[in-house]
Amino acid sequence: MPNFHSNRLAKEVVLRDPVHEYIHIEDQVILDILKTKEFQRMRRIKQLGPIAYVFPGATHTRFEHNLGVYELTRRICNIFAKKYPSRRSGDGLWDDNNRLLVECAGLLHDIGHGPYSHTFEHLFGTDHEKIGQKIIMDPSTDINRVLSQVSPNFPGLVASVIAKTYPNPQVVKMISSQADADRMDYLKRDAYFTGVTYGEFDLSRILQEIRPYSDGICFTMAGMHAVEDYIVSRYQMYQQVYFHRVGRSMEVILQHLLERAKIAYQQSNLPVTPSLAKFLAGNWDLTDYLKLDDGVMETNFSMWTKSSDPILADLSKRYLFRQPLASVCIDEETKSLLPKLKTLIKQAGFDPNYYTDTNSAFDEPYDAYKPSGKNANSQIEIMQNDGQLIELSQLSPLVRSLNGTLQGDERFFFPKVMMSNNLEPQIFDPLYQKFQRYVKNGTLRYIRKPKK
Amino acid sequence: MPNFHSNRLAKEVVLRDPVHEYIHIEDQVILDILKTKEFQRMRRIKQLGPIAYVFPGATHTRFEHNLGVYELTRRICNIFAKKYPSRRSGDGLWDDNNRLLVECAGLLHDIGHGPYSHTFEHLFGTDHEKIGQKIIMDPSTDINRVLSQVSPNFPGLVASVIAKTYPNPQVVKMISSQADADRMDYLKRDAYFTGVTYGEFDLSRILQEIRPYSDGICFTMAGMHAVEDYIVSRYQMYQQVYFHRVGRSMEVILQHLLERAKIAYQQSNLPVTPSLAKFLAGNWDLTDYLKLDDGVMETNFSMWTKSSDPILADLSKRYLFRQPLASVCIDEETKSLLPKLKTLIKQAGFDPNYYTDTNSAFDEPYDAYKPSGKNANSQIEIMQNDGQLIELSQLSPLVRSLNGTLQGDERFFFPKVMMSNNLEPQIFDPLYQKFQRYVKNGTLRYIRKPKK
Amino acid sequence: MPNFHSNRLAKEVVLRDPVHEYIHIEDQVILDILKTKEFQRMRRIKQLGPIAYVFPGATHTRFEHNLGVYELTRRICNIFAKKYPSRRSGDGLWDDNNRLLVECAGLLHDIGHGPYSHTFEHLFGTDHEKIGQKIIMDPSTDINRVLSQVSPNFPGLVASVIAKTYPNPQVVKMISSQADADRMDYLKRDAYFTGVTYGEFDLSRILQEIRPYSDGICFTMAGMHAVEDYIVSRYQMYQQVYFHRVGRSMEVILQHLLERAKIAYQQSNLPVTPSLAKFLAGNWDLTDYLKLDDGVMETNFSMWTKSSDPILADLSKRYLFRQPLASVCIDEETKSLLPKLKTLIKQAGFDPNYYTDTNSAFDEPYDAYKPSGKNANSQIEIMQNDGQLIELSQLSPLVRSLNGTLQGDERFFFPKVMMSNNLEPQIFDPLYQKFQRYVKNGTLRYIRKPKK
Amino acid sequence: MPNFHSNRLAKEVVLRDPVHEYIHIEDQVILDILKTKEFQRMRRIKQLGPIAYVFPGATHTRFEHNLGVYELTRRICNIFAKKYPSRRSGDGLWDDNNRLLVECAGLLHDIGHGPYSHTFEHLFGTDHEKIGQKIIMDPSTDINRVLSQVSPNFPGLVASVIAKTYPNPQVVKMISSQADADRMDYLKRDAYFTGVTYGEFDLSRILQEIRPYSDGICFTMAGMHAVEDYIVSRYQMYQQVYFHRVGRSMEVILQHLLERAKIAYQQSNLPVTPSLAKFLAGNWDLTDYLKLDDGVMETNFSMWTKSSDPILADLSKRYLFRQPLASVCIDEETKSLLPKLKTLIKQAGFDPNYYTDTNSAFDEPYDAYKPSGKNANSQIEIMQNDGQLIELSQLSPLVRSLNGTLQGDERFFFPKVMMSNNLEPQIFDPLYQKFQRYVKNGTLRYIRKPKK
Repeated sequence: MPNFHSNRLAKEVVLRDPVHEYIHIEDQVILDILKTKEFQRMRRIKQLGPIAYVFPGATHTRFEHNLGVYELTRRICNIFAKKYPSRRSGDGLWDDNNRLLVECAGLLHDIGHGPYSHTFEHLFGTDHEKIGQKIIMDPSTDINRVLSQVSPNFPGLVASVIAKTYPNPQVVKMISSQADADRMDYLKRDAYFTGVTYGEFDLSRILQEIRPYSDGICFTMAGMHAVEDYIVSRYQMYQQVYFHRVGRSMEVILQHLLERAKIAYQQSNLPVTPSLAKFLAGNWDLTDYLKLDDGVMETNFSMWTKSSDPILADLSKRYLFRQPLASVCIDEETKSLLPKLKTLIKQAGFDPNYYTDTNSAFDEPYDAYKPSGKNANSQIEIMQNDGQLIELSQLSPLVRSLNGTLQGDERFFFPKVMMSNNLEPQIFDPLYQKFQRYVKNGTLRYIRKPKK
Repeated sequence: MPNFHSNRLAKEVVLRDPVHEYIHIEDQVILDILKTKEFQRMRRIKQLGPIAYVFPGATHTRFEHNLGVYELTRRICNIFAKKYPSRRSGDGLWDDNNRLLVECAGLLHDIGHGPYSHTFEHLFGTDHEKIGQKIIMDPSTDINRVLSQVSPNFPGLVASVIAKTYPNPQVVKMISSQADADRMDYLKRDAYFTGVTYGEFDLSRILQEIRPYSDGICFTMAGMHAVEDYIVSRYQMYQQVYFHRVGRSMEVILQHLLERAKIAYQQSNLPVTPSLAKFLAGNWDLTDYLKLDDGVMETNFSMWTKSSDPILADLSKRYLFRQPLASVCIDEETKSLLPKLKTLIKQAGFDPNYYTDTNSAFDEPYDAYKPSGKNANSQIEIMQNDGQLIELSQLSPLVRSLNGTLQGDERFFFPKVMMSNNLEPQIFDPLYQKFQRYVKNGTLRYIRKPKK
Repeated sequence: MPNFHSNRLAKEVVLRDPVHEYIHIEDQVILDILKTKEFQRMRRIKQLGPIAYVFPGATHTRFEHNLGVYELTRRICNIFAKKYPSRRSGDGLWDDNNRLLVECAGLLHDIGHGPYSHTFEHLFGTDHEKIGQKIIMDPSTDINRVLSQVSPNFPGLVASVIAKTYPNPQVVKMISSQADADRMDYLKRDAYFTGVTYGEFDLSRILQEIRPYSDGICFTMAGMHAVEDYIVSRYQMYQQVYFHRVGRSMEVILQHLLERAKIAYQQSNLPVTPSLAKFLAGNWDLTDYLKLDDGVMETNFSMWTKSSDPILADLSKRYLFRQPLASVCIDEETKSLLPKLKTLIKQAGFDPNYYTDTNSAFDEPYDAYKPSGKNANSQIEIMQNDGQLIELSQLSPLVRSLNGTLQGDERFFFPKVMMSNNLEPQIFDPLYQKFQRYVKNGTLRYIRKPKK
Repeated sequence: MPNFHSNRLAKEVVLRDPVHEYIHIEDQVILDILKTKEFQRMRRIKQLGPIAYVFPGATHTRFEHNLGVYELTRRICNIFAKKYPSRRSGDGLWDDNNRLLVECAGLLHDIGHGPYSHTFEHLFGTDHEKIGQKIIMDPSTDINRVLSQVSPNFPGLVASVIAKTYPNPQVVKMISSQADADRMDYLKRDAYFTGVTYGEFDLSRILQEIRPYSDGICFTMAGMHAVEDYIVSRYQMYQQVYFHRVGRSMEVILQHLLERAKIAYQQSNLPVTPSLAKFLAGNWDLTDYLKLDDGVMETNFSMWTKSSDPILADLSKRYLFRQPLASVCIDEETKSLLPKLKTLIKQAGFDPNYYTDTNSAFDEPYDAYKPSGKNANSQIEIMQNDGQLIELSQLSPLVRSLNGTLQGDERFFFPKVMMSNNLEPQIFDPLYQKFQRYVKNGTLRYIRKPKK
């Protein structure tokens, strides 16, 4: 049983949220976490990064998402405490002594993220999960100081929930499973801010039908179709928003831009803010990491548009002023055409190392069971009237059709000018024309040689 | 080319609609149809009949739905006329001379419906499609009079669009296909009034991506996921709303109630309003049909609650005061148990002919192609950039999983008391206990005989 | 302290509601009230009566509204019990022992309504408040039987809350005050179903800031603008929806139609259903009243369209097929013109007793204080940080501008044909022309005699 | 008549927008403006600046707002061109040749804004209107280059519409009046992103009832209540969002922070990005201005948290990590207390020049007429059926109550610690206690001296 304690606020504090109406803060420790500099920093990191270049409304940040996940854990705890309170140890019901723990874990589950996390991790070896653990556990952070006031072992408990090593599976799965507070918040939030209404799902019904059981969290039979719809919405958001070809194109530019900056930093006198300099030099620490945000990155890119390195300057402009690369779908077979295409691109004046790339975006919309996978044992269970559990894909033809599949595509990115099709024939470039013969309906294809 | 003409209204008339914001009426003939008694009658017939007993908000009527279908055809015509105007015959684009025709067909496509159409057709042989054609074609109706003012052959043209015999497939499919104005309106409308948000789909994107082609109407590649989501929403609405077991239970009661009334009418002095009397006697005509609505039916049921026929009186009360039957899922195998169960039900004092029934509810969420089916040649086509068409289930794993399948269930309905489980043992009825052994998790099952 | 008790349901029952998402039923007695025939009858009485002729979506019924008021009382009780629980008698906080009582009162506050209550009361002397009290108190009703199972004096307590004589002002004002659960539900609901979005207000903020005090219910300072906006929304709904000239026109027709039916019933062999006959004959009782609903009324109107009484037949058609009268605004001064106008109308062939009327529709959007008025002592109070109360109109310039005023208009209704303006001169009727000289911009006006 | 021309796009480009569903781009010039670096820069400037510290969802930027204003002008042009096309010069109807001009003006009306415009203008003399004119007119900008391709005088025409000197009042008032596309977009958009639903108003009805007339733009009588509601919503948004005391507190901090930075820059070796350095030095030009955005500012603040200037470092932290000042309402009378309070604050260790301020926030929600004011001649007119205009406040009691009034308050800001109220008496600071005697219910007050 938990041995920590937080002061209840005399009067709850509420924050207006367009997705959940209000975020209710009832404990001093939650309020104190919000006030830390590490948490406030989340305000300056967009939830969807370069996807705002495709869906202009998607300017929302990790700050609101973290609050939203917290609020959902709070609501689920309320529901569990009211409808399924544990009466004796081992009865598989909800022990509300875990409430503060799971609320803090919900609030902090993403605290390790920096700007453009994905790209950054790839280039600078910043593992957002490890960094998140460190922010919670390291005595130098304000968050650790706040959590420690609850009890000396509280930071460790919060970290263990996020790391999925906390022994109570209900607590862990409220934050990390195929239907957890994290995913429910980001799907609804991303749908709201992008305006992509088919990302919508019926959260109020899901909360009506969610329940604890001995091995975690499941849903009653009456909620089956709402959960099914949630899985479909998740699939739709991946296909339509997260994997949008233009968003990925901006990410490709971003990655090449940072790669080039690393080289330029070593070779020349690149203007760069102190925090980012440490990353380009390869000797950053946690303090440097916590200094980074979207604005810092863009401030650097803006300075680099005047760089003497023409590729860095050009890529910086392309990123800041939204000049995406074009792309086509490729597959194992057509990949063999890429060397040919890169040669044409090079002849057109672009360094293929910086102006082309391949990028895979695949998601497994649902996974009924994969013993060794990272989703192991996280299938969604539906509870029958008699308490028996049935795995979701057994009940839903839609989920069955997505189960275990990878949905998405692989794309080859290249300068848009290669697809230009000028109507004035004298300017028409035979190079471009040659390139375009390989592209049909947005897909790369083999072309038959004309018969002689 | 059409040879009919309507006066444009000097000033458009608008009706507020919670689903489409406004219904815009721009032609005198549309306004005149609205004012006919045959069309006003639609105000008194609920769109979803007894489903309002399950979803209390579902009190919307066929009147609003018909207006909504009209409004969608109007908007689609606007889009086609702006983006895809035909320039020469046979170019596969939109000839806006068909606008008034398709708008009238949209407005009148359901005009033949009466109260509880489904049940009624079964019992009294009222075919709503034939009746609809008659209302449009018969010189005795106000609707025929109004349509004839456009041109003498205009009623026939409107009827032919509804009957799918009009030669222009774009006109026919705007009203009747797997993604037509009719379905789009009822899905959005039924979702709005029931409050079942997962019936929502992205209509504005679909209208952004809809386009005509030589054989009908299709969608561009950019709209594929929105159309996919529409198919999924349709499936969800069928499973969650249209096939709800309690709604079907009320329909079962309704049917038995009317069957019993037919018998009671012949045997006794049943109080009945003049219009319904003609149906019970079996000699109704169009005028009688047009007198019926939900209120007339319920007025009769209310009078019958005092009937000397105890079954009729009881069923009338059950319908009016929402006392549904219970039900369990059955299949080909467990059906063989029904005689046994009916015997128990009879022993408990209920006539199985009136208090039990089996009811199938299955829908084919999508059908890629079935040459002889009623949806023949109505698959949804997606147009590639180069104009090539691909059938939807080729592109979408979700639609592929639903394609050609029947989704739904078959149920056995019986008095709820059979499932009663009184905690006071002395009142406990061994009959009920015996019955309940056959039911587990809402499904009928075989029970093994206890070993001796 | 209350001495009644209800069994909590083992598992709550939920009803989907498009306005409040879910109605949660947690007590056996609430569920049992829903199942009574008196309550189910509410399903067949539209909340807004003939206003559905103006806003086609407004088909929602008193059934859903009553459920909605119940749900709001339940939520307010939850909020009060959590945030402001009474600790000792007389501390001005919330005693949750009143919960079941106020929930039942919320559910039943409108139970005395019949079809077209307003018109009916005028013509047949049916007082819906008295009838409501009777339905609750009379041992012959199912509702009385259900309530009595809670405790013998429970029906009386529920009736006293509705009659505002129950001693606890918090309980009474949750149902009856200028910002009560009743008004909050109907404003939101009517806005949703009509589609009139400016009837919207911020219910979630109001519920965030509502609180009990010794003399009733008030709002905290942080909620002032939300309450202000609610008062404005209420004003808007009255001006735009409830007082719509076409809705009132249909009510005028309805009233004349029923007046005429009373006469025709005495003079001739008018076909009429048994329940309504008792009202036309003037000897109805509670059982007859409970038989009436919208469908019964319309069934009678439909039969009367064939009546030998030409005025009754015509008015019945006008009502059923939505043929409203036209109208103009009048005031004390222009009223003196009405005899002249009625003479013209009579000359045009219409009996002014049945085809004209004046109708006032005025509402007092907010009333800070009127000692003798029916809203006495019901002003809205805002609580300062230090507990001091300030009456709303002291804080809000908008509310101050509406305070104590009557908003609305008085109109003269007459046959639409009087305003006809045929372009073909030979048919032009000098009578109509004469009539129209008195009308300008929808208002009656004096006309100056031409100078000689 | 306009003498400019743009190429229609072969296929319209659409952008998803959560407020207006889609932004439709139909002309090459609009698309080209979007692609300029000056316009893309708007993505990095939040629409509501520090208000995102109060309403976490308010992260939307000027980019989306500009697109939204463009889209509304496009829709209004569509409505005017369809319903009110000019047939001859001087008929007071709409000449659609102005469409491209007004669309460009809508898109660019805010192009001169930089980060925290208000504060910036105050401190650095940057006039966003003049800068906007310069961005449009100066041949060095991409926007000027794009506009000039329409016609050489097109930049000047666009600038004149924004400057309100273009001769056609319909064009000018579509962008600048009390009910223009600019305000309509920002109210709806800010309501959507903050989640403050009472900022909502019925845009679709307003667009239904908007119309041109000889002196500008007005609304028909049927739209009066929708316009009234829009004025009320505007008032609500000012009181609840734009004037929120915490948002203003963050602005006060920002202003003092920049003031201090100016001094620190002159005195020491302040780290600062090149673009901002030019402002601190007082020798900025347009290029420097266009380099600024929210991220650049915050990057500088972040560097300054390590400054050797303790006030600058502290204010930078307060801004970045959201540590607002407290505040109380003041008026002319209580202002005389401020010196006393500042003395107490100074004694508590805070420099009053940087840690206190007074701040007025007043708005005139509606102005019927003020000949010399900046809204001169911009009252809202309602057109009667006969074409006569009536000024809005003549018709609406709500608007009348707001007309010509100033709504808002004046506040005194000071460190929050002055209000601290520690429960442990030994730490309690008599200074704070003394300070707090002057504050009651959030307002400053005189205190009577205790009688001797």
